[in-house]
Amino acid sequence: MSAALVKPVLYSYFRSSCSWRVRIALALKGIAYDQEPVNLLKDGGQQFSTEFQVVNPMQQVPALKIDGVTLSQSLAIIQYLEETRPNPRLLPQDLKKRAQARMISDHIVSGIQPLQNLSFLKQVGEKKLEWAQGSIARGFQALEQILQHTAGRYCIGDEVSIADLCLVPQVYNAERFKVDLAPYPTITRINKALLELEAFQVSHPCRQPDTPAELRA
Amino acid sequence: MSAALVKPVLYSYFRSSCSWRVRIALALKGIAYDQEPVNLLKDGGQQFSTEFQVVNPMQQVPALKIDGVTLSQSLAIIQYLEETRPNPRLLPQDLKKRAQARMISDHIVSGIQPLQNLSFLKQVGEKKLEWAQGSIARGFQALEQILQHTAGRYCIGDEVSIADLCLVPQVYNAERFKVDLAPYPTITRINKALLELEAFQVSHPCRQPDTPAELRA
Repeated sequence: MSAALVKPVLYSYFRSSCSWRVRIALALKGIAYDQEPVNLLKDGGQQFSTEFQVVNPMQQVPALKIDGVTLSQSLAIIQYLEETRPNPRLLPQDLKKRAQARMISDHIVSGIQPLQNLSFLKQVGEKKLEWAQGSIARGFQALEQILQHTAGRYCIGDEVSIADLCLVPQVYNAERFKVDLAPYPTITRINKALLELEAFQVSHPCRQPDTPAELRA
Repeated sequence: MSAALVKPVLYSYFRSSCSWRVRIALALKGIAYDQEPVNLLKDGGQQFSTEFQVVNPMQQVPALKIDGVTLSQSLAIIQYLEETRPNPRLLPQDLKKRAQARMISDHIVSGIQPLQNLSFLKQVGEKKLEWAQGSIARGFQALEQILQHTAGRYCIGDEVSIADLCLVPQVYNAERFKVDLAPYPTITRINKALLELEAFQVSHPCRQPDTPAELRA
């Protein structure tokens, strides 16, 4: 069977915001895939197992087996999907808007998420809620300002882009960490509009194969 | 004067690894630009000033004024340069190799750098050397393994790519934080090969307009 005919396999954890980004991309592009859950808490973290180390030496989800290769890092995966399965597009056609979409994505992916993710907070110890809230609040303050220049219905004008795939999972984390979202009306409005779309609903953490029964919705 | 005829302005700090990535891209692509130094230490951090807040609400360097817009986030900037000034290319032509180049870049930019940068270490307080060393060592362990599958003379085969632009500044930081590099022979070898290239030399932290006299080389 040729690599293109094999269904992609997504190594994912229902609550991982990085995994969710990729699930949204797969849903928007209508790509059928299988999920291989990796429980980041069980057995001291299944991402550290010898088996998973072979899949992804970075010991993180998501990882996607597709077209005969295994890719990791959510934005690299999403951009590979964009280049191999361009419809519907997740990067705007206009080059400056493309840059802005990537800028917002990178701001969330490297500026906010790393300072509030599970493996980081474990190391921080008892001050973890403070750290998570502080990182998200600082990041959202900047993001709210940037969106004044770029947003329409969504982060970049009225077309769903890679930036939106990063925004929604980050807002979900903000809610988990009880960050007050009142100072960020634009973020809140865009998040709400995006959650109305089917691709964001089917990929939601409350609806994955590994979502525990008590968290399902 | 049309936007394309105005020289780009790079807001940069000589020792910022994220700024260095962009300086390498500008040098490789032969783009003339002016530098506007932003001292991350002076006056409590000039990136927090009201003036700079207008340039980049993320309060970080680099930021690049180019073609009538101001962009931030190093990878977004580099990919904008790639899309508007494609020669020489910094993303491989082969789509799987492009994905790997982005994967390595993202691993460094969001997996390593945020947990050893200046603003983060300030918040960590007294354990900052431990944090920096731990973050870099964990990241390099994974990277060393990934490079076994992707590297030639450079990170992705024998062509300089965006991954190399991230690697060299990260190794520079590792050396500053006295990380033992012996366990990472591939990283060390690639770094050395890259530092022989002019674009990596002219963009080096020891050779910028804002490099203090005692650190110049």
